[in-house]
Amino acid sequence: MITPVHEAARDTVDVGAAAGVYPVFVGPDLLEHLPVVLSTYAPTRRVAVISDDEVGPIHGASVATTLADSGHDVTVLTFPAGEASKTRTSWSILTDGMLEAGLGRDCVVVAVGGGVTTDLAGFVAATYLRGVPIVHVPTSTLAMIDASVGGKTGVDVHAGKNLVGAFHAPRAVVADTTVLATLERARRAEGLVEAVKHGAIRDEAHFGLVVERAESLIAAEPMACAEVVAASVRLKAEVVAQDEFEEGVRQILNFGHTIGHAIEAAADYRIGHGRAVACGMIAEARLGEGLGVTEAGTAACLIEALAPLTVRGEVDLDPTKARDFLGADKKSRDGQARYVLLRRIGEVARDDGWTHEIDDEAAHAALEAVVRGW
Amino acid sequence: MITPVHEAARDTVDVGAAAGVYPVFVGPDLLEHLPVVLSTYAPTRRVAVISDDEVGPIHGASVATTLADSGHDVTVLTFPAGEASKTRTSWSILTDGMLEAGLGRDCVVVAVGGGVTTDLAGFVAATYLRGVPIVHVPTSTLAMIDASVGGKTGVDVHAGKNLVGAFHAPRAVVADTTVLATLERARRAEGLVEAVKHGAIRDEAHFGLVVERAESLIAAEPMACAEVVAASVRLKAEVVAQDEFEEGVRQILNFGHTIGHAIEAAADYRIGHGRAVACGMIAEARLGEGLGVTEAGTAACLIEALAPLTVRGEVDLDPTKARDFLGADKKSRDGQARYVLLRRIGEVARDDGWTHEIDDEAAHAALEAVVRGW
Repeated sequence: MITPVHEAARDTVDVGAAAGVYPVFVGPDLLEHLPVVLSTYAPTRRVAVISDDEVGPIHGASVATTLADSGHDVTVLTFPAGEASKTRTSWSILTDGMLEAGLGRDCVVVAVGGGVTTDLAGFVAATYLRGVPIVHVPTSTLAMIDASVGGKTGVDVHAGKNLVGAFHAPRAVVADTTVLATLERARRAEGLVEAVKHGAIRDEAHFGLVVERAESLIAAEPMACAEVVAASVRLKAEVVAQDEFEEGVRQILNFGHTIGHAIEAAADYRIGHGRAVACGMIAEARLGEGLGVTEAGTAACLIEALAPLTVRGEVDLDPTKARDFLGADKKSRDGQARYVLLRRIGEVARDDGWTHEIDDEAAHAALEAVVRGW
Repeated sequence: MITPVHEAARDTVDVGAAAGVYPVFVGPDLLEHLPVVLSTYAPTRRVAVISDDEVGPIHGASVATTLADSGHDVTVLTFPAGEASKTRTSWSILTDGMLEAGLGRDCVVVAVGGGVTTDLAGFVAATYLRGVPIVHVPTSTLAMIDASVGGKTGVDVHAGKNLVGAFHAPRAVVADTTVLATLERARRAEGLVEAVKHGAIRDEAHFGLVVERAESLIAAEPMACAEVVAASVRLKAEVVAQDEFEEGVRQILNFGHTIGHAIEAAADYRIGHGRAVACGMIAEARLGEGLGVTEAGTAACLIEALAPLTVRGEVDLDPTKARDFLGADKKSRDGQARYVLLRRIGEVARDDGWTHEIDDEAAHAALEAVVRGW
C-alpha cells in the first residue's frame, strides 16, 4: 500500500513480526504525516500521547495538536525525563492515567521521545488491557536506530536494566530526522554507538559509512541522518525478522550489552546508554581477542569509530556492583553470563549458539580495565 | 508425541496458540507425572514454583518435592491467598524473588493454585526477562475449567479487574482432578459456574451435562470432574484457537463478565468470581430478553443451573461503584461498555461483531436487580 507518507519518507523499512509486518518511515519532515500513519496502521479515534517532560513540551505537544486537528481524541501523558523513570512505578502511573481517561481497547498509544520513552510506553501498551497498539515516534538517534525497532519493551528494576518487559511490536515507526536538530549534540552523537554496533556485527561497509559520515551525523544534517538511520534500521530489521523473540540470532544485537548494561547499572544510570555500550563493545572485543576468537586489532578499530561519539574517560562506578550485575544478565544460562563475540568487524563468532561462556574473572578484568578509560 | 502422561490422563485437550499447540491433561492422579510434562514441554533444570500460602503448603510443596526429586533446581515462591493479592505489588515481589534466585531465561514457572495464582504467576512469567515459559497446575475447578486455559494473564488495579496483563500461552496444563477433593465444597461448586457459561454460549448438551452431574461434581468425584472439566476445556479451546487475542469470537467467553466484573469490583472482591459471574449471566440474560434478543425463559434456565452452585442472596456492594466499574470495562468501545448476549442456551446472538451496545440505564437497572438476590 502506497500512502502519502511512503512518498514523503526518504526510506521505508519493513520489519517482519509475528503480529504482521510494520513500516519504519525514515526521513526529514515526517511528523506532519502522523494522522495518515494512524489512519492507515492503527485506525481509531482515541489516542494516548506519551512523552517525557523534556520532549513533551516540544514534540509531544506538536504531535498532540496535529492529531487533535485531524479529529483524534487525544490524551496527553508525561513522565519525568531520564532513565531513572524507566520503572514499574512510572509504568503504573501511566497505565492508571490511561484508565482514568477511560481509554478502552480501541485506543492507540503514540510514544514520542527517546529510548526510555519508547521502552516505557511500549511496556504500557503491551500490558494495557492485555495489549493495545502502539506507534513509535522516536526523537533521538538512539531510539530511531535501535529502541523503536524490534518490539522490545521494558523497565529497569533494582537487579538490572530491562529485566521486566514484553515483546510488543509497533504498528508503525515514524523517524523524522529533522527532529534530531533539537537534540543535544552529545546525545545525538552517543546514539550513533548503536549504528556502529550494527555495522560491527553484520556489515563492515555500514561500519565504514558511520565512521565516514560521523561529522555530518553529529551536526544533525537531516539527509545524512536519514541515510544512516535507514541503513541501520534495515540491518536490525533483517536480524529481528529472523528471530523476533531472541531465541537465536537476535542475541547478536546484544554485542557490547552484557558488560554495557552492567556498567550502566553500576553507575546508577548516571552515564548514557551509548557510552556504556561503547565501553561494553570495547571490553567484549578485547575479551574475544584475548581468547583468540576475535581478530587482533578489532578493539582498536572500534575505539577509532567510537572516539568521536562519546566520552572516553574514566567511568565513576562501583566495581563490586558491576560484578553483581554481570551475573543478573538476561543472557545467562544456568546462572552463567553469556557474551556475544565478534570474529572481526562485520561478523560475529559463533560458538555453542550465538553466545559464548567466558570465565568470570576475565570478564570482570575486562570491565574494570575499560571503565578506567579507553 | 505419546508420553506416559498422555496415557495416564483420562483426557488430553490440545489448545491451538500462536506460540504452538499446548496440551491440557485432565484426569485423576496426574501430579506425579509433572517431571515428564516438564521434560517434554519445557525442558530446563531451573524451576520457580509459585503458589499462594494456602495451596503452597499442600500442593505447592508436593510439586516442589516431586520436581526436586527428578533433578530440578526448584525455587519456591508464595504470596498471600486471595483476590486481594492479584496486584502489581504482588507481581513485583514475585518477579524480584525470581531475580534474587538468579533465574535466567532458561527457567520455567510452574503455577500451582486457583485462578488468582494462574493469572498472577502467568503475568510474572509473561514479563520476566520479557517472557519465560509457564506450566499451569490448576487446583480449583475454576482454574481447571477456565483460568489456566487460553493464555490470559493479569492483575487487578484500582479501576477494575484484569485491566493490566498480557496474553501468554502456557507450555502445558496439568489438571489433576484428585486435587479437587482438598478444595472447600463451596469453592468447588462455584468454579462450575464457568462450565455452565461454556454450555450457555456454545453447547446446550454441555449445559445439560453440568446440570445433570452437579451433585457428583460438587462431591469431587474425580472421574465425573474429569469428564466435565475436559469437555469444558474442549469448548473453550475451540473458541480460543479461532481467536487467541480476543479480537472477535473469543469475546463470547466474556458472557456474564461485563456485569460480573463490575459486581466483583464494587464488592471489593469479598465475593467469589463464580458468584459474581453467575449474577452477571443472569443480569445479561435478562437484558437480552428485555431487548427481544434472547429467547424468553433463558434467564430462568440459567437460574436453575446456577442455583446449586453458588449463593443466591443479596450481594453487599456499593451501587455507585458498580456503575463506575461498568464504564471501565475492557470491552468498551469509544467509552461505551459492550455486552455479550445469548440467542438461547447454547448460542450467542451476533450483532455488530460479537458484542452489543446497551443503554447504560438498562444495564445499571439489571445489575441492581440481580444483586438484590435471584
